[in-house]
Amino acid sequence: MGKRYISDLSEGERIVDHFLVQSKRLLTTKSGKSYLSLVLQDRTGRISGRVWDGADELNEKFRTNDTIKIDGTVELYNSERQLIIKRIRPSEPDEFDLADFVAHSAYDIDEMFLELRELVESVENPHLKALLDAFFEDEEFTALFRHSSAARNIHHVCVGGLLEHSLSTVRLCEYLTTQYEGLDADLLIAMAILHDIGKVRELEISPAINYTEEGNLLGHITIGIRMIGERIDRIPDFPPKLRTMVEHMILSHHGQSEWGSPRPPMFLEAEVLHRADDMDVKIDIITRALSEDSDPDSSWTKYHRALERVLYKKPSYEADTPPGDSPDE
Amino acid sequence: MGKRYISDLSEGERIVDHFLVQSKRLLTTKSGKSYLSLVLQDRTGRISGRVWDGADELNEKFRTNDTIKIDGTVELYNSERQLIIKRIRPSEPDEFDLADFVAHSAYDIDEMFLELRELVESVENPHLKALLDAFFEDEEFTALFRHSSAARNIHHVCVGGLLEHSLSTVRLCEYLTTQYEGLDADLLIAMAILHDIGKVRELEISPAINYTEEGNLLGHITIGIRMIGERIDRIPDFPPKLRTMVEHMILSHHGQSEWGSPRPPMFLEAEVLHRADDMDVKIDIITRALSEDSDPDSSWTKYHRALERVLYKKPSYEADTPPGDSPDE
Amino acid sequence: MGKRYISDLSEGERIVDHFLVQSKRLLTTKSGKSYLSLVLQDRTGRISGRVWDGADELNEKFRTNDTIKIDGTVELYNSERQLIIKRIRPSEPDEFDLADFVAHSAYDIDEMFLELRELVESVENPHLKALLDAFFEDEEFTALFRHSSAARNIHHVCVGGLLEHSLSTVRLCEYLTTQYEGLDADLLIAMAILHDIGKVRELEISPAINYTEEGNLLGHITIGIRMIGERIDRIPDFPPKLRTMVEHMILSHHGQSEWGSPRPPMFLEAEVLHRADDMDVKIDIITRALSEDSDPDSSWTKYHRALERVLYKKPSYEADTPPGDSPDE
Amino acid sequence: MGKRYISDLSEGERIVDHFLVQSKRLLTTKSGKSYLSLVLQDRTGRISGRVWDGADELNEKFRTNDTIKIDGTVELYNSERQLIIKRIRPSEPDEFDLADFVAHSAYDIDEMFLELRELVESVENPHLKALLDAFFEDEEFTALFRHSSAARNIHHVCVGGLLEHSLSTVRLCEYLTTQYEGLDADLLIAMAILHDIGKVRELEISPAINYTEEGNLLGHITIGIRMIGERIDRIPDFPPKLRTMVEHMILSHHGQSEWGSPRPPMFLEAEVLHRADDMDVKIDIITRALSEDSDPDSSWTKYHRALERVLYKKPSYEADTPPGDSPDE
Amino acid sequence: MGKRYISDLSEGERIVDHFLVQSKRLLTTKSGKSYLSLVLQDRTGRISGRVWDGADELNEKFRTNDTIKIDGTVELYNSERQLIIKRIRPSEPDEFDLADFVAHSAYDIDEMFLELRELVESVENPHLKALLDAFFEDEEFTALFRHSSAARNIHHVCVGGLLEHSLSTVRLCEYLTTQYEGLDADLLIAMAILHDIGKVRELEISPAINYTEEGNLLGHITIGIRMIGERIDRIPDFPPKLRTMVEHMILSHHGQSEWGSPRPPMFLEAEVLHRADDMDVKIDIITRALSEDSDPDSSWTKYHRALERVLYKKPSYEADTPPGDSPDE
Amino acid sequence: MGKRYISDLSEGERIVDHFLVQSKRLLTTKSGKSYLSLVLQDRTGRISGRVWDGADELNEKFRTNDTIKIDGTVELYNSERQLIIKRIRPSEPDEFDLADFVAHSAYDIDEMFLELRELVESVENPHLKALLDAFFEDEEFTALFRHSSAARNIHHVCVGGLLEHSLSTVRLCEYLTTQYEGLDADLLIAMAILHDIGKVRELEISPAINYTEEGNLLGHITIGIRMIGERIDRIPDFPPKLRTMVEHMILSHHGQSEWGSPRPPMFLEAEVLHRADDMDVKIDIITRALSEDSDPDSSWTKYHRALERVLYKKPSYEADTPPGDSPDE
Repeated sequence: MGKRYISDLSEGERIVDHFLVQSKRLLTTKSGKSYLSLVLQDRTGRISGRVWDGADELNEKFRTNDTIKIDGTVELYNSERQLIIKRIRPSEPDEFDLADFVAHSAYDIDEMFLELRELVESVENPHLKALLDAFFEDEEFTALFRHSSAARNIHHVCVGGLLEHSLSTVRLCEYLTTQYEGLDADLLIAMAILHDIGKVRELEISPAINYTEEGNLLGHITIGIRMIGERIDRIPDFPPKLRTMVEHMILSHHGQSEWGSPRPPMFLEAEVLHRADDMDVKIDIITRALSEDSDPDSSWTKYHRALERVLYKKPSYEADTPPGDSPDE
Repeated sequence: MGKRYISDLSEGERIVDHFLVQSKRLLTTKSGKSYLSLVLQDRTGRISGRVWDGADELNEKFRTNDTIKIDGTVELYNSERQLIIKRIRPSEPDEFDLADFVAHSAYDIDEMFLELRELVESVENPHLKALLDAFFEDEEFTALFRHSSAARNIHHVCVGGLLEHSLSTVRLCEYLTTQYEGLDADLLIAMAILHDIGKVRELEISPAINYTEEGNLLGHITIGIRMIGERIDRIPDFPPKLRTMVEHMILSHHGQSEWGSPRPPMFLEAEVLHRADDMDVKIDIITRALSEDSDPDSSWTKYHRALERVLYKKPSYEADTPPGDSPDE
Repeated sequence: MGKRYISDLSEGERIVDHFLVQSKRLLTTKSGKSYLSLVLQDRTGRISGRVWDGADELNEKFRTNDTIKIDGTVELYNSERQLIIKRIRPSEPDEFDLADFVAHSAYDIDEMFLELRELVESVENPHLKALLDAFFEDEEFTALFRHSSAARNIHHVCVGGLLEHSLSTVRLCEYLTTQYEGLDADLLIAMAILHDIGKVRELEISPAINYTEEGNLLGHITIGIRMIGERIDRIPDFPPKLRTMVEHMILSHHGQSEWGSPRPPMFLEAEVLHRADDMDVKIDIITRALSEDSDPDSSWTKYHRALERVLYKKPSYEADTPPGDSPDE
Repeated sequence: MGKRYISDLSEGERIVDHFLVQSKRLLTTKSGKSYLSLVLQDRTGRISGRVWDGADELNEKFRTNDTIKIDGTVELYNSERQLIIKRIRPSEPDEFDLADFVAHSAYDIDEMFLELRELVESVENPHLKALLDAFFEDEEFTALFRHSSAARNIHHVCVGGLLEHSLSTVRLCEYLTTQYEGLDADLLIAMAILHDIGKVRELEISPAINYTEEGNLLGHITIGIRMIGERIDRIPDFPPKLRTMVEHMILSHHGQSEWGSPRPPMFLEAEVLHRADDMDVKIDIITRALSEDSDPDSSWTKYHRALERVLYKKPSYEADTPPGDSPDE
Repeated sequence: MGKRYISDLSEGERIVDHFLVQSKRLLTTKSGKSYLSLVLQDRTGRISGRVWDGADELNEKFRTNDTIKIDGTVELYNSERQLIIKRIRPSEPDEFDLADFVAHSAYDIDEMFLELRELVESVENPHLKALLDAFFEDEEFTALFRHSSAARNIHHVCVGGLLEHSLSTVRLCEYLTTQYEGLDADLLIAMAILHDIGKVRELEISPAINYTEEGNLLGHITIGIRMIGERIDRIPDFPPKLRTMVEHMILSHHGQSEWGSPRPPMFLEAEVLHRADDMDVKIDIITRALSEDSDPDSSWTKYHRALERVLYKKPSYEADTPPGDSPDE
Repeated sequence: MGKRYISDLSEGERIVDHFLVQSKRLLTTKSGKSYLSLVLQDRTGRISGRVWDGADELNEKFRTNDTIKIDGTVELYNSERQLIIKRIRPSEPDEFDLADFVAHSAYDIDEMFLELRELVESVENPHLKALLDAFFEDEEFTALFRHSSAARNIHHVCVGGLLEHSLSTVRLCEYLTTQYEGLDADLLIAMAILHDIGKVRELEISPAINYTEEGNLLGHITIGIRMIGERIDRIPDFPPKLRTMVEHMILSHHGQSEWGSPRPPMFLEAEVLHRADDMDVKIDIITRALSEDSDPDSSWTKYHRALERVLYKKPSYEADTPPGDSPDE
């Protein structure tokens, strides 16, 4: 039997399957009895769970972020589904697929990667092409790159998220090279591909997405410059000025110092890369905020802290007009 | 004989032609003699001029921003060209073409306008189409719109500048509707066309580009909302919610209150419009700053106040590599 | 029997009356029994309530913001009054007066309105007088204006609040015209009356005070400019410059862009209006914060987020001096 | 013969009188001859002057900020009046009245002071009355207070300026006590009188208005608190809490830390004092900026740095309407 | 038997001793029974407590911030220690030592004070020495100074904290006078000793550390200037300029207006004092944040609001290297 | 004869020596004659010069930043010295010592470097010692490091300035390790030595001090991290965590993002390094501003843009007290 996902569970159903432990607390009822309050997670969402029997003992057997196998029943509690768990044990490594427990990009990773590789091939400048090859012919890197998330909790937060975001940014940059004269297409496209490369080491998926120690202390910009530098060191005759420009485009792609770029973009391709990156990020944040909204009665989402605003859930403005009066008839 | 433009004048040449008076000062030499120090302008640039004889009298005959006919000779003064003017009189209205004295878009206005009209035709929503038609079938408006500048001195500062900027913004928005699901293409394209409409009344070209009193007191956002409202009032059955959304997109297109939008963009099309507008503006500012740079010895432009940075004049980074060693051979 | 208000309820009392449902949650005791936790509201305040029996069923019968009739008893729980509710049903529309459930201005609306009308009559400029008449001879508008709140939750939050705030602002402006030469009294007084006119459409009282969709997307400044423009359009020969100045005073009355005015006040009457408005608002916020303070043991109120400070509850500083030593004897 | 003021000088006139030296530079013509370039000042304005003969010698005889007697002729130079000076010597102390060289309040100092004294008498609280008396029955203080300027170059920059500004602030505060319940009139009026008291030592008129060393290192708020403290120390039984409140009102009257008040106003009278002070200051700044504007051709003043805006010189908006069409007929 | 401190309590232990009531709430179980939920404190930390019997009655007998004697047992509840309290009564004043209930500096107060007194003696300038003596030969002041905390909850929050912080600041300033020429050692050391003097009246330990009314309304800078002024008034021939400089160093020691100093440091000693003060404060904040961290599993502390960052708990970076490979062998 | 420095030149003196051309302009007198206006520089200061004869021809022979030999006479012009130059020719490379034309640290470079080397030896941690050796046993690096300036125009602007600043910072850090427990002395001292290492490539002295292209595009922080990374790559078994901490200390030493550090200091040594660096920088800026002040009549320096304030030139405050009254007698 295939895996049963949280989004599909319904009231009364008995479920025996593996889940990721998102959080765990040992509590005590007023009568003095211990119980476990869990939040379980898979790639489709989260559900709370209760273990009423043997809580003290079970509590020692697994930790937050472990994967466990449970046997339980879905009940409704205050209109929300809850798992009443009878049995529980840690999962064995070969019993589950980690990919089941963390969100994935809505797009096919192989297809996206293929498109990105084609864009790599379109770069004609031999130095930049050599730099891209140093990354994309390195299997260890590409495995990591295909798997990485683009952020911890703001945008493109999923396996494949970094690839999805990078690809959108490259596409937009490619379009812009067709519209504005004087853009160095090779430079812009190569750096659009590489701009967030440092995120493969800034973040880890385990399966929760968190900053690594290196990520927290240095950030993906500094890591990315180092990753690029290590590869350029091995490319013969890479022009020193081009190296500085490449490093500058990584350094400046957040646009200003308050957002983590100690230098502002100082030439056109750097400015365009910053804005294309930002455009794709903001579109994803808004799309995500709208799709995660859960209150059908309101025209407005909750206050979004990163965006510093509420969002308007566009009504069907046509519906305001009585059918018979419609001006398009 | 055709008009002789400032950019073409060379040392020693005698010139009898019309110019716009950009500034005028009556000064006195140490020996007590009055002279006029002028800056003259046409669509290709500026040149300083001196009138050594009859300055007091001539000074009364014209004012800054007038067009005058001069008879003079081009001399070099401290490596720069200067007009030594013998005779001067105000131009008659029928003697010159105002268009000769103010910069024009580098693109053909008719072609740009044709393309914009086609984009107008692509809008299917009948309400938005009616709104666009209310503008673009109004000859008085279209004449003004085709002629207007997009700003006083930052970006697209020229006759046709508003049209050029609007068209670029629409094109970018159209591209984005092909890349991101869930964008309402009609709404986004219609509003990209109309987003800066208020500038036809905020600025005037006379031929210097200046704010009108209305422009200074209200700004193009408030003027634009009023212009749109006046037209919507005459469209039967325009949906009230759509009207509010249209007005919101004008209101929020500067992105945040510090930049003149009292409301931030509150739905996806409003956010995308803001960023597409800003992308085109910034590309024009940088391109303009690079093209206006006049010091060939430096790798850097002067400090740019609006951008708050200096810009790097990209060297030919290939040239760093000795020819024989080039990795692309 | 007249309505019994929340501020008057005392311990042990049985109460059968209508209240507004401010919030509602269905919870479950440890023993698995459902109960309802309510917050009820009338114009005098709020009280929490509990329904221990039949909670699941009753939960379906009404929603937040409904008015319900309850039968219950006032008990003390941890020093606070609480309603233990036995029976509950939705109120019929004709059973209650909405005005009982939302706060009212402490001043008489008719008296305030009369005073405002007299101030309208004092305006001599025929254009401005015509504009004021276009509002105050419109019964639909005046009904709305008299009823509106001046804000959602910061200042003058009550039925009649907009009228109360507008009147105070006008009075202060009138005083200032007697103190400072060169103030155009007609312009200042007319615009003080109209400055917040857009709030009649920005907010709705239902009976909770909330932003309308239009209010959230456009804000009262933009709405106000449109309301004024629609009326000016119907006044013959309204001077165009005066119209721009009128619109500028609406636009700039928040003083600076960060506070929602894309233009700062650009002439004296606009600046004075902004500061008179702000003076009245801040006095109301502080007065309100002091009157709502509920801890008699402290010399300080809680931290006030809008004011970004705590407030000092002025002690009777005379009391420090022993009676016999008082210097005023 | 009475003093001849700069504002009255006309072309061709010979003038022998005393002026204040605002600035002085020794320059050399191309032919190597020295000359003096002066700016002279009296209470009505400034005029530039030239000394062509004996410049080296005369240069040693006086310094900037001295008062000199000159013998010269008024000539026009580039449309502006200029003094061509033949003779020059330092003025003797008894030859001139310092008051002729620095601007005075447009209001009569005696009348203003009388009104302020009456307001002092209106304070009933014996402690606050005693504090006011400690200042206003001190002749040394009152002489200084009547003479002082309210600022160095922003607002009320003149002899009597501090008195004029204090009086306006008190009047506005007195009005507000009639409008808002719960304002402690004695406290508010007493502190409105005293709020800028520290300026008598922060600034000196000599006759240029400059910061004293103490003023620059401490500021008028800290100086004012000390001046008040020294007097309270000598008042028997002044309530300690009242003293703290009085000091807080001085400390907080600039409203927030960025404007020099380390504490925000923490009770209503402190907030009202801050806003009344600010209202009077801003009205004076705008009135001053409009009266100093010197370009009759523009509808706009120059950019005002303290206000961070240009100001609109209100046109006669009635004039837009053709007489025959006037709606008020 | 000596006092038993909270940090030493272990599971199962019976305890009869005095504690400070940090907070107190009367709650009710679902079955309707009242109980008291307390947080008790001594100088070593905090523990929660429960009173299950006689809660209503006991609740009336003491208030928050009182010291009580309890008889109870230590139990474990969800892995944390909790006191189950059987009996409770208010402590008598002579039964406890207030010093047991509030944290103390880790350094010996007598030793620190002795060192500070020696630094006082090192000041040679007679005026500054007289000023220091006016404080340190005043027993009332020194008792207060030795006891005071340096802040309410950010740094050096303990009895003796002000002394500890002042001493560290003086030491650092003394070191700097040996490194940089042109520092006036007497002025810098004297003011480093006195810079936070106002805190003895800004804060009170009762035993919770709180702002006094005077402290909240005026702040320690204004209080400190007054304390110094009162003493200078009694020192004959104290140079006025030195007084202004001394007051300026108090006024400016927070460095800029946003941090509470209306004037920035305007001479070198004032700047150095500001930075030495800040250095010591920040080192204490970070040391404190690391020592209070309670999660041994994470490399990072929780987010620290005052520092606006998380802190890295330095790993033993040597441990990364396998022992046998250590390069130092 | 030894070099004659600008600071020693006196009126009437004839001078034949080499100077650096700081700026050069070809101007024309009213009579039409060309002349050269120069500013010449050596390590002691600047002087203006005039070439009245043969200006057009001489103008072609040298450029700004060249070193030239001149023959001229010192004259006084408007109280300032000026060189009237008769002859001029470019200097030959072997005729001058570049060090004569740019300011040097006031301290001996050899002595400072020796002290720094001893501090390097004091580091015991073998990894950090190896890293320091990788720099200080590299003669090319040490030559550059000893020569470099610490900034372009704010602080330590001179040959040896980087060394002087680094040494002061290390000394202060070493002192702090003796005062505060828990500081890792090796880490702090090593990184204090290396914190500004990137400046050897960010700036160039030619002999004007300017940013390199790499310096402008990347900044010394990014360059420094790369320089350190290249050396760590060659050190066997350098602990990865230590590398990240070392890089973090470079990255964060400006303290916050607005000042160029994308990460704030996240452990104690990083915070201390930031503040020690800043302390030394600010002391140098203030000392420099006071020593460069040129107006002996004022108690205040000019407004200092980087410090955003004027500075008080400390008077001899003792002098206020009449000798006979001195309290120290």
